Amino acid sequence: MKRLAFIFFLIACSSPVFAQQDSAKLAGQYRDAATKILASSMQDSLAYTRLAELCDRFGPRLSGTPNLERAIDWCLEKLKADGFDNVRSEPVKVPYWIRGDESCELLQPRPKSLAMLGLGGSVSTPPDGLTAEVLVVGDFEELEQRSKEANGKIVLFNSPFTNYGETVRIRVLGAQRAAKYGAVASLIRSVGPFSMNTPHTGGMAYADSLPKIPHAALSLEDAEMLSRMSKRGEKIVVKLKMSGKFAADSALSRNVIAEIKGTHKPDEIIAFGGHIDSWDVGQGAMDDGGGCLVSWQALKLIKQLGLKPKRTLRLVLWTNEENGMRGAKSYAERHAAEKHVFCLESDAGVFKPTGFSFAGKEPFLSMAKAVTGLLSAMQPMKLSPGSPGADVAPLVEKGVSGVGLLVDGTKYFWYHHTHADTMDKLNPKEMNECVAAIALMVYVASDFQFQLP
Amino acid sequence: MKRLAFIFFLIACSSPVFAQQDSAKLAGQYRDAATKILASSMQDSLAYTRLAELCDRFGPRLSGTPNLERAIDWCLEKLKADGFDNVRSEPVKVPYWIRGDESCELLQPRPKSLAMLGLGGSVSTPPDGLTAEVLVVGDFEELEQRSKEANGKIVLFNSPFTNYGETVRIRVLGAQRAAKYGAVASLIRSVGPFSMNTPHTGGMAYADSLPKIPHAALSLEDAEMLSRMSKRGEKIVVKLKMSGKFAADSALSRNVIAEIKGTHKPDEIIAFGGHIDSWDVGQGAMDDGGGCLVSWQALKLIKQLGLKPKRTLRLVLWTNEENGMRGAKSYAERHAAEKHVFCLESDAGVFKPTGFSFAGKEPFLSMAKAVTGLLSAMQPMKLSPGSPGADVAPLVEKGVSGVGLLVDGTKYFWYHHTHADTMDKLNPKEMNECVAAIALMVYVASDFQFQLP
Repeated sequence: MKRLAFIFFLIACSSPVFAQQDSAKLAGQYRDAATKILASSMQDSLAYTRLAELCDRFGPRLSGTPNLERAIDWCLEKLKADGFDNVRSEPVKVPYWIRGDESCELLQPRPKSLAMLGLGGSVSTPPDGLTAEVLVVGDFEELEQRSKEANGKIVLFNSPFTNYGETVRIRVLGAQRAAKYGAVASLIRSVGPFSMNTPHTGGMAYADSLPKIPHAALSLEDAEMLSRMSKRGEKIVVKLKMSGKFAADSALSRNVIAEIKGTHKPDEIIAFGGHIDSWDVGQGAMDDGGGCLVSWQALKLIKQLGLKPKRTLRLVLWTNEENGMRGAKSYAERHAAEKHVFCLESDAGVFKPTGFSFAGKEPFLSMAKAVTGLLSAMQPMKLSPGSPGADVAPLVEKGVSGVGLLVDGTKYFWYHHTHADTMDKLNPKEMNECVAAIALMVYVASDFQFQLP
Repeated sequence: MKRLAFIFFLIACSSPVFAQQDSAKLAGQYRDAATKILASSMQDSLAYTRLAELCDRFGPRLSGTPNLERAIDWCLEKLKADGFDNVRSEPVKVPYWIRGDESCELLQPRPKSLAMLGLGGSVSTPPDGLTAEVLVVGDFEELEQRSKEANGKIVLFNSPFTNYGETVRIRVLGAQRAAKYGAVASLIRSVGPFSMNTPHTGGMAYADSLPKIPHAALSLEDAEMLSRMSKRGEKIVVKLKMSGKFAADSALSRNVIAEIKGTHKPDEIIAFGGHIDSWDVGQGAMDDGGGCLVSWQALKLIKQLGLKPKRTLRLVLWTNEENGMRGAKSYAERHAAEKHVFCLESDAGVFKPTGFSFAGKEPFLSMAKAVTGLLSAMQPMKLSPGSPGADVAPLVEKGVSGVGLLVDGTKYFWYHHTHADTMDKLNPKEMNECVAAIALMVYVASDFQFQLP
């Protein structure tokens, strides 16, 4: 993120006059298209109703599960029915992890079932579970200070949420750090700022040099309770049972692709979309079924309006973003010889859109500015430097310019990776606004005239 | 509520000048006491830390369970240690209902465990559960229209939350209405405006003339999903398993009492407090451990400040508010011969206090106005006509004037009767503000001079 921000800064400084003139010109040129797209995007609720059908019908869509593959079949069928070009899937080997039965029972100081979710990729406990005393620490620093107390215990990291990037380190690295000092398992306070006894799952990583110990998240409520008990000097004993099974790259999934072929430069590609996989809880509505469906609907809207992109518009529904990024890697490798000119990702939720994050160079910066300005007829939108997203990152790293759709993220991390990531958190109007934002951005990217510097 | 509002209105109109003068005089008289109480209430976090200990140590406190009785023992012990007068408990026969194991599995159109909580007092299903097709309706009116479809089915009432008083009718009466048309069980969408896959339990009622069928609440998320499936024309089949056991007034519980004896008129009593029982989920922190602890702390603060109430201040921690109201009835009967002059209840949560609801007559209206005004030095407070609460209702019905503590209720019904009613939703400062509000109100009530009209 920091590197990209710096590049953005350099470009913004190097050619401000060019950029400003160019943006204004482009905005004038695409005002009619914008008006059409903004108005038409609000005429139905198809993005919402299709997402609801996908979510209700197949449930959460973890890579390697039949749920996801059935959902992908359904997408392919509907995309074909929509009449897009080159609707197809591309096989991707993905890791396989299945949660199985799991529980975390407080035994001392009093019996209570704790609200928990195993973290994705965690090893299992012995079949009868694992009973041990709990050492509660606030963060990695406190564990270092109290490292001598960890041996043979279950370490609970009760770290309050500050921001995702910072707090998620506990989830990813917690098991390694605890294992380093002889802990037999590790627990974390779920990564989220607000809880209704809501555990959050998510990815984690083991270190090859250290024992692999079971790793799970408790709800904020239960983590805080154990922490208070610990501060009162009470001895805490829990019984953790997890039966997760993991096998690296042993399952098959698919990226999904649908296009509108470019009329003038069909070999120049605008790739955009979201990830079709999700964690195995809730419905994966916001993360990221919504990103897939608003991108899809944007392509459909462009087709319905009879707009003819000069370059090829390619919708990609990446697989395995959550626990492996194999879809993004596979796409980038498989399509390395193609000429990607621009990319867009929607994976920050599909709430009210607020702008785009941008990484790249001119003339795409001016183009993105012009589009952001045009969208402000709908509501205030901002273009900020930042990563467009994880699935287009391999393209961006090779120099392709791109944007990520930004939305009102107030509650995103309330629901993220939980049983509460469900359709009722979304609404058709906000999703349509996301559709409009994506449709205009990719259409202009596919149509505007430019000469690369 | 409507009746009480009318009485208030009559009084307010009948003696406005008297009331205004009286209030101003009282406010002047108790300004020093107010200053002392407001400042001292903020000097520790005892209300919060004691509530946390109560909640963490004993868990939720459903009437008839050992959890509640152990919590009551703990309260009695601490109240004695605080040095109050006449610390004692009074036996109360309470209904016994135990939830047991329960589950609701969606079988068709696809398998999924639904988030559910049986409603308090519900009968059980057969031991192997009960499998039936689901009829989804929005409300009682829709059930009337579709009554012919209900026979042999499980009726799901998917009623969105409007306000508690209105929406709770579905919870209380749903099983009766569904049984009337031959349904084998009934489900409701949980009574709450916001959900993180959070089922809410609560009380319900059977009609003697109709079959008693199992009755449970689903999370908003799952109720909405079933409703969407139904609207798509899909056949919905669930398997409901509940093993709740109920026995009327077969268990013993206790009301808890602690006093500061009045110096001049010890036989005139100010009764105030909250209910010590809770539902069997979460911690009963907000509903209503908090109400008990802020009332208790108010009494402690008065004692610590060396204020000598002329009338007797009596803290009451009522039992069995949630599923029977036996504590309130028993208290009113047992103490019918005593002279209660004023009462206060805190059972609306212990968030930032915003004022009091008032029911009664002069001179207590003027007194309550004066106190509310004095508390506005802390923050804006309002006195409004309204019921002081369920546990003091038997006193108020006999003509005793009283107030209910009002607080910022924005999130009260998010947590109400759920696993999320836990300590982390509260904070020490807001609880101390509740303490200050209660302490000043009951102290002035115990001290001011009046002649009953």
